[in-house]
Amino acid sequence: MKLNEHFSDLQDSYLFSTIAHKVAAYQQEHPEKEIIRLGIGDVTLPLCDAVVQAMHRAVDEMGRKESFHGYGPEQGYDFVKEALQGYYAKRGVVLDLQEIFVSDGAKSDVGNILDLFSSENTVLIPDPVYPVYVDTNLMAGRKIVYLDANEQNGFLPLPDPSIKADIIYLCSPNNPTGAVYSRDQLKAWVDYARECGAVILFDAAYEAFLSDPALPRSIFEIEGAKECAIEFCSLSKTAGFTGTRCGYTVVPLALEQEGVSLNKLWLRRQTTKFNGVPYIVQRGAEAVFTEQGQRQIHKAIDYYRENARMIAGALREMGIWFTGGENSPYIWLKCPGGLSSWEYFDRLLTEANVVGTPGAGFGKNGEGFFRLTAFGDRDSTAEAVSRLKKLSLSN
Amino acid sequence: MKLNEHFSDLQDSYLFSTIAHKVAAYQQEHPEKEIIRLGIGDVTLPLCDAVVQAMHRAVDEMGRKESFHGYGPEQGYDFVKEALQGYYAKRGVVLDLQEIFVSDGAKSDVGNILDLFSSENTVLIPDPVYPVYVDTNLMAGRKIVYLDANEQNGFLPLPDPSIKADIIYLCSPNNPTGAVYSRDQLKAWVDYARECGAVILFDAAYEAFLSDPALPRSIFEIEGAKECAIEFCSLSKTAGFTGTRCGYTVVPLALEQEGVSLNKLWLRRQTTKFNGVPYIVQRGAEAVFTEQGQRQIHKAIDYYRENARMIAGALREMGIWFTGGENSPYIWLKCPGGLSSWEYFDRLLTEANVVGTPGAGFGKNGEGFFRLTAFGDRDSTAEAVSRLKKLSLSN
Repeated sequence: MKLNEHFSDLQDSYLFSTIAHKVAAYQQEHPEKEIIRLGIGDVTLPLCDAVVQAMHRAVDEMGRKESFHGYGPEQGYDFVKEALQGYYAKRGVVLDLQEIFVSDGAKSDVGNILDLFSSENTVLIPDPVYPVYVDTNLMAGRKIVYLDANEQNGFLPLPDPSIKADIIYLCSPNNPTGAVYSRDQLKAWVDYARECGAVILFDAAYEAFLSDPALPRSIFEIEGAKECAIEFCSLSKTAGFTGTRCGYTVVPLALEQEGVSLNKLWLRRQTTKFNGVPYIVQRGAEAVFTEQGQRQIHKAIDYYRENARMIAGALREMGIWFTGGENSPYIWLKCPGGLSSWEYFDRLLTEANVVGTPGAGFGKNGEGFFRLTAFGDRDSTAEAVSRLKKLSLSN
Repeated sequence: MKLNEHFSDLQDSYLFSTIAHKVAAYQQEHPEKEIIRLGIGDVTLPLCDAVVQAMHRAVDEMGRKESFHGYGPEQGYDFVKEALQGYYAKRGVVLDLQEIFVSDGAKSDVGNILDLFSSENTVLIPDPVYPVYVDTNLMAGRKIVYLDANEQNGFLPLPDPSIKADIIYLCSPNNPTGAVYSRDQLKAWVDYARECGAVILFDAAYEAFLSDPALPRSIFEIEGAKECAIEFCSLSKTAGFTGTRCGYTVVPLALEQEGVSLNKLWLRRQTTKFNGVPYIVQRGAEAVFTEQGQRQIHKAIDYYRENARMIAGALREMGIWFTGGENSPYIWLKCPGGLSSWEYFDRLLTEANVVGTPGAGFGKNGEGFFRLTAFGDRDSTAEAVSRLKKLSLSN
């Protein structure tokens, strides 16, 4: 039997394990120091009450013969799809129920969607980037072209007409940079994709953090996007579902290539290789979109937003350049004093006892930058901010 | 952008939709008839109390900040892996925790495991078969060689040394035939796989239905299997998890190809393209393996077993040849009177008002055979059996 040779093209990521080792070593030497972690990309607030109650009811249903649920539709129950249809309608995006696929998360779908495409395609990926886009394509042996995101373009690169791409990854609000595309910028991407017959894989996992109504929450708010884009979203950050697992993917019926419907291909892929999301979790997801659920999850989102505002405010005071911090739970800052990502990491750890994520871990353009997140505890975040301010680093 | 051209090699399966249409049409013409469905492959008994209580506790944990769980390990929490380790140990199979991967079901893993292999491999698949094995390989453009399972070999084909295979699918107890490989037969497969350097993908989804202690429940009970096999299993039929979604895959550390560990490749695949099973579901899965959970799920399994015994007994009385019916929830019978699968389906529907699944839907060797399942209600199954007996069909 022959193995997939492309696995050898993958690089092992030591980013988070290196961070863990450095933190553990420092803590061992200085057991008295209280270290604050602003590096995590995971939520910390619990599931809201509406979700908890819905899941209790669903567990009870599963325990009684007359209300038990066995196999459900692979693409999700209509009650979740209708809730999502309503959610999109609020921002003027009209979706057919068939266009919505409920899944166990954006990470799975962003990887699995590649089953639909030939390995011959050229993939355009911004750098810095969420590593899953890169690794899933390397595994399949696809050619990757990187697109420079940097201080000059505000980490929001626009299409380069001289580059021919087939599959384009966009994430807005962005992980790791927190930068957000405007409507006009996304329109430029949609026009470019249609021009070169490419598909845009749009990761909207952080859309719930947008507070500026002028910014697009879905690529389908842009004219022409239904002919060229697939959108991935998730309840992970929206409703604290990182350990509960529910996302959704929108594959428009209008998205075709040489008469073949990508919606039909994805349905075939999912019915063949996936068995749907647990009934209990789908009832929890449905509850997120009730009036009560929306009120409750927005309390949590506002909590994280306030953390982001505090961090952004401190950086502004200190004259440090950054993206994100509003409309995003991420803050992407330029390391002060001309430090490299890892130098700044070490200084922050040893002098302020604050842990963040070195930007270099997200690609070559991340060197010299650093990611902080707003998912921490309020008091710890406030304390971290005051320590950051005291840290004397020349800019 | 270029699509994956291999999707056009897939055939649309109209099996279950054709059945549904025929049943609906008959029912409309004869609204007074009470139709009994023995075609379903889905469980009907609810989750057991131990699982329900464990999930209620887990939902509460998720609703409190101090006990909330965000991202878990992609390969599953140790508490589930330890429970599975203990479950395997009972039948003498010693597993390292690293060898166990918790997933959302055998269907996903059986498909996703193919990411590890080159598309150049030749795949050996028995016919008749669970269609997912075929479709997932067609999607990836692999060459499939079919292996005849038939009345002569009791639907338990053995290796043919003249055929060179790289990837071999085995399912025992089998879906759709209910046939079960003995230890010696599985040993022949393990020896053959090691001889030709092939990997066996062993689907053990129905192992919990085995009651004969002489029959192997895991391929790892066979000497040498850890060097050539991956095992997939699921709580779907074992504990009624078809709508709750939890399975597990064992990739032995000893399984290597040219020095590359398949266990490491699978870990890399899962950490890149999967985010783990919901915490709540994993707590439910853990409860399945407690003493109380085992007692409760075995009550349900015994219920289905008794259904199978009733159907098998009737067929024996009628002199109809079949496989399965013990050690399996499936009964695979030779259509009486020399009828084709669909002819028998029509007779059964219109004359006995019983619905089953035509064997022809599972591959060419299924023609002339028919699948009944034991997952129905006891009273309906008893009534169906008495109708079957009254149906006058010459054998």
